[in-house]
Amino acid sequence: MHGIGNDYIYVNGFEETIDDPVSFAICYSDRHKGIGSDGLVIILPSDDCDFKMRMFNADGSESEMCGNASRCIGKFVYDKGLTDKTELTLETLAGVKKLKLFLGEDKLVETVTVDMGEPIFESGLIPTTINKPSIINEPVTFNSEIKYNITCVSMGNPHAVIFTTGIDKLDLNKIGPVTENAAIFPRRTNTEFIEVLSTDRIKMRVWERGSGETMACGTGACASVVAAVLNGHTGRKTTVELLGGELTIEWKESDNRVYLTGGATTVFEGTI
Amino acid sequence: MHGIGNDYIYVNGFEETIDDPVSFAICYSDRHKGIGSDGLVIILPSDDCDFKMRMFNADGSESEMCGNASRCIGKFVYDKGLTDKTELTLETLAGVKKLKLFLGEDKLVETVTVDMGEPIFESGLIPTTINKPSIINEPVTFNSEIKYNITCVSMGNPHAVIFTTGIDKLDLNKIGPVTENAAIFPRRTNTEFIEVLSTDRIKMRVWERGSGETMACGTGACASVVAAVLNGHTGRKTTVELLGGELTIEWKESDNRVYLTGGATTVFEGTI
Repeated sequence: MHGIGNDYIYVNGFEETIDDPVSFAICYSDRHKGIGSDGLVIILPSDDCDFKMRMFNADGSESEMCGNASRCIGKFVYDKGLTDKTELTLETLAGVKKLKLFLGEDKLVETVTVDMGEPIFESGLIPTTINKPSIINEPVTFNSEIKYNITCVSMGNPHAVIFTTGIDKLDLNKIGPVTENAAIFPRRTNTEFIEVLSTDRIKMRVWERGSGETMACGTGACASVVAAVLNGHTGRKTTVELLGGELTIEWKESDNRVYLTGGATTVFEGTI
Repeated sequence: MHGIGNDYIYVNGFEETIDDPVSFAICYSDRHKGIGSDGLVIILPSDDCDFKMRMFNADGSESEMCGNASRCIGKFVYDKGLTDKTELTLETLAGVKKLKLFLGEDKLVETVTVDMGEPIFESGLIPTTINKPSIINEPVTFNSEIKYNITCVSMGNPHAVIFTTGIDKLDLNKIGPVTENAAIFPRRTNTEFIEVLSTDRIKMRVWERGSGETMACGTGACASVVAAVLNGHTGRKTTVELLGGELTIEWKESDNRVYLTGGATTVFEGTI
């Protein structure tokens, strides 16, 4: 299954047991000699929630949670009849996540909304050494030559959002490492380069901390819409165009939480 | 299935019809939003041979034939009971190919030998502008600075084989384009960099014309062993270590033909 290009192998842990998920993830994530994926997701029973997820990256390391994967879990459990509820709680290593499922004409799950929590602005929690109550449209000079105005938002992980133009032509392989490793970000940062298309649509390219440019980053899309609202570029409900597809983000005024809505796709099923 | 890392989606054309194989190959070769593969192979009935293959690259273009894929076809048709013969003829756009299947302890096909035909040495047929009856250990200066001795062999496609040391550290992204596009190769060339490990084992890295460095190249392995024999480095039966795995090549004295033997692996089966 994939969520805007972020693809994992999903295993029904109610029926199947994987004794060594680390080896399984490494072996079968191989894109030439395995099934090919960004990693392995096992769907399990939970004591306190409807379901529990465990997630292993392609290198075998266990991951806390992933917005794109959690949408696919919502589709998996409903489409396969493991539940008939359309509002679910999911136990992850990053806490309990709430999912809302929306069905298509085929009565299968088409899109899923994930509650991504409240944005964080305090500089010490992002963290950044820029000592201000919030960092909005702040001029910064990187490597004493690259000048950008940045807006800093944490969605549990740090994001520096930059509004600019002509992002298709940006040399992210050159700029990304500079912002990622800047001294003002003691734990490095993810960086989003945003082009505002209208008051409810933005285009995003993302440089992920430790990964480089990726096709999609759910927390980055959330941080970018929060930053767009704070800078007066868009309304609170805005669609984000990423390389891998579209996500709709809503930063609700009523509860200050950020809701991410996007597709989940089943590509094929198999036996190994 | 994959043959030393060269992976395709195999479809049983006796049971399934793909109306638009070009779109199918493009859509499902996508490694994030599709099944993920180097392309699509359809196994079909043949008028004159045991089976016929049609092969489409990940970009939808139809391909003539691929040694790694033909081994997997041998495994597919035998393991699935489409034949009980262990010597097969296969109709391809590059002519009739002969396969010999070898079974493992599980009575399934483990390795397959493919008759790759006779090597070609005539400069006009390779083609190269170096005007000699054969080009063996010929000193050439590329870009007026890079000096290599090359041996030229065609296996239906052009190969320039270079025996050298320390190939693990070679910067192929720099050297490959220089040899590929040298004026002495009017239709460009594939280039193999070979380290001789013993009289029956060589290590190879390959720069493929139009593709760059790849994990495996069957015709390149054949050309390299022919060149190793001509240069007195190895005997006629030699194992080649490629990035994706091992192939054993035999250039038979009796019929002057080159036989390639290697593994074929079924990774998973699925429905889409």
